[in-house]
Amino acid sequence: MVRVKVPASIANFGPGFDCIGTAVNLYNFIEMEFSDFPKIEVSGEGQGKISLGEDNLVYRAASTILKKANIEKKLYIRLKNEIPLARGLGSSAACIAGGMIAANLLLGSPFNKEEIINFATEMEGHPDNVVAAIVGGLAISVKVNDRVVYKKLSMPPSLKIVVAIPEFELKTERAREVIPQKVSLKDAVFNIGRTALLVAGICEGDFSLLQVATQDVLHQPYRKSLVPGMEEILEEALAMGMLGCFLSGAGPSVVGLVQEGKAKEVGEFMVGVFEKKGVKARYIILDTCNEGTSIV
Amino acid sequence: MVRVKVPASIANFGPGFDCIGTAVNLYNFIEMEFSDFPKIEVSGEGQGKISLGEDNLVYRAASTILKKANIEKKLYIRLKNEIPLARGLGSSAACIAGGMIAANLLLGSPFNKEEIINFATEMEGHPDNVVAAIVGGLAISVKVNDRVVYKKLSMPPSLKIVVAIPEFELKTERAREVIPQKVSLKDAVFNIGRTALLVAGICEGDFSLLQVATQDVLHQPYRKSLVPGMEEILEEALAMGMLGCFLSGAGPSVVGLVQEGKAKEVGEFMVGVFEKKGVKARYIILDTCNEGTSIV
Repeated sequence: MVRVKVPASIANFGPGFDCIGTAVNLYNFIEMEFSDFPKIEVSGEGQGKISLGEDNLVYRAASTILKKANIEKKLYIRLKNEIPLARGLGSSAACIAGGMIAANLLLGSPFNKEEIINFATEMEGHPDNVVAAIVGGLAISVKVNDRVVYKKLSMPPSLKIVVAIPEFELKTERAREVIPQKVSLKDAVFNIGRTALLVAGICEGDFSLLQVATQDVLHQPYRKSLVPGMEEILEEALAMGMLGCFLSGAGPSVVGLVQEGKAKEVGEFMVGVFEKKGVKARYIILDTCNEGTSIV
Repeated sequence: MVRVKVPASIANFGPGFDCIGTAVNLYNFIEMEFSDFPKIEVSGEGQGKISLGEDNLVYRAASTILKKANIEKKLYIRLKNEIPLARGLGSSAACIAGGMIAANLLLGSPFNKEEIINFATEMEGHPDNVVAAIVGGLAISVKVNDRVVYKKLSMPPSLKIVVAIPEFELKTERAREVIPQKVSLKDAVFNIGRTALLVAGICEGDFSLLQVATQDVLHQPYRKSLVPGMEEILEEALAMGMLGCFLSGAGPSVVGLVQEGKAKEVGEFMVGVFEKKGVKARYIILDTCNEGTSIV
């Protein structure tokens, strides 16, 4: 039996669309062992809702590893989930990354970390959540042909991540549909320059850059209508003392980067804006998870 | 009388289109004093070619500063130029930045560095060359409304910059015409992810990232036909031991990033490729100029 702990992740970190994600200290726990027949138990987030059949995402991810290793066995999987579903916190990436890592461990680690990253990215479609979930920290990742090239950075520990989580779900596929597949060169340059500032600001601990460096024009403007309240939160972010503010992944959660003392106030503000729009929401105060998926 | 030394710069550094530039140790020297009538002398690059009238770019840049300070005076300017013209080495940005800084000094510095950066960017149209020329190092810059937000990074000193300079000129305007103003989201993400890797690699001195992190799909592919030989150099870069390879600014010069011992070999290779295409070329081995424009 193996047990792993896989973190939630915030992808599309600021301007880093489809390439920058950060792991945070909110986890799914996966226990896995061989079994005579497929069996899945779920507690916590998704309980009563997540499939308990072989189409379960963790089960499918694990089966992919077994298949690649030419092992024909069934699994008994117990899931204890802290990561809410379809809120832009990398729940599916955690299932894929965690399922693959657990299965790999169960088989005696026939695959190395780079292989797991490539398998998980192939299954998820883009690398930013899965790489963050696997390696931790602020993860930059790009696809080069069929493999992922990534760099993990540590986030300055004094940076707190406040996440406002609306009660409604937003499927990534739906949130992707609204984004134009052609963009102006000007908008591309907007995000490129800010991405450079973001990485420089993180590497050098220069928080003064984050306000500008977390701006995006490639996906957020098109997702406004899907996330009532987002626009108003972004507009007030500076006045509320946020160092940076952006949509978490494909939404609907919204992230505020703050200095320690500001977290509660910012969280309450964001929840208040959502509620004014008639959207129930809660907030949580998170830290970067610098270790990624780990054995427990 | 004031005398300033302003460095050449390599803009569009890898994937950092219009937002990342690096100052290098190749300089234009500008001497400036008040005069009863406009007078300009030029030696070195551009001698016999650069205008000696009030439409001279350094003169115009200096006049902009005088005008902003409400000073109506004429100038006597002596230029000693090392930066070749219209080769993608930031010659015009050096003229603008140097002319403005010299004039500002001559007036007793009524404007601060940030103001000069904004004036120079307005005159040049994009910030990457002028910011690098003014502040030095690897400069990341973005326009936020009418002002420039920038971050200067130091380049690892062991990184040598080999620049192959073809004999022909390529005007930036011509090189800009060929670039599409609409790009695919996929191509935008390509450059965003690589820009993030580039900045992380520079900040952490991780040269293993540079091969991927200097790739571009937003301008180089469209400029192939304007720079015969570029494509072949890019294709052989890895095999030749370059850490990274890309077009310098809008071209036609090509940059190879190398470890110290490799510089001569790489320079000769690049010149050889140009010559096979019937293009005369020379190469120079440069270092980052970390101080930017300075008084001499």
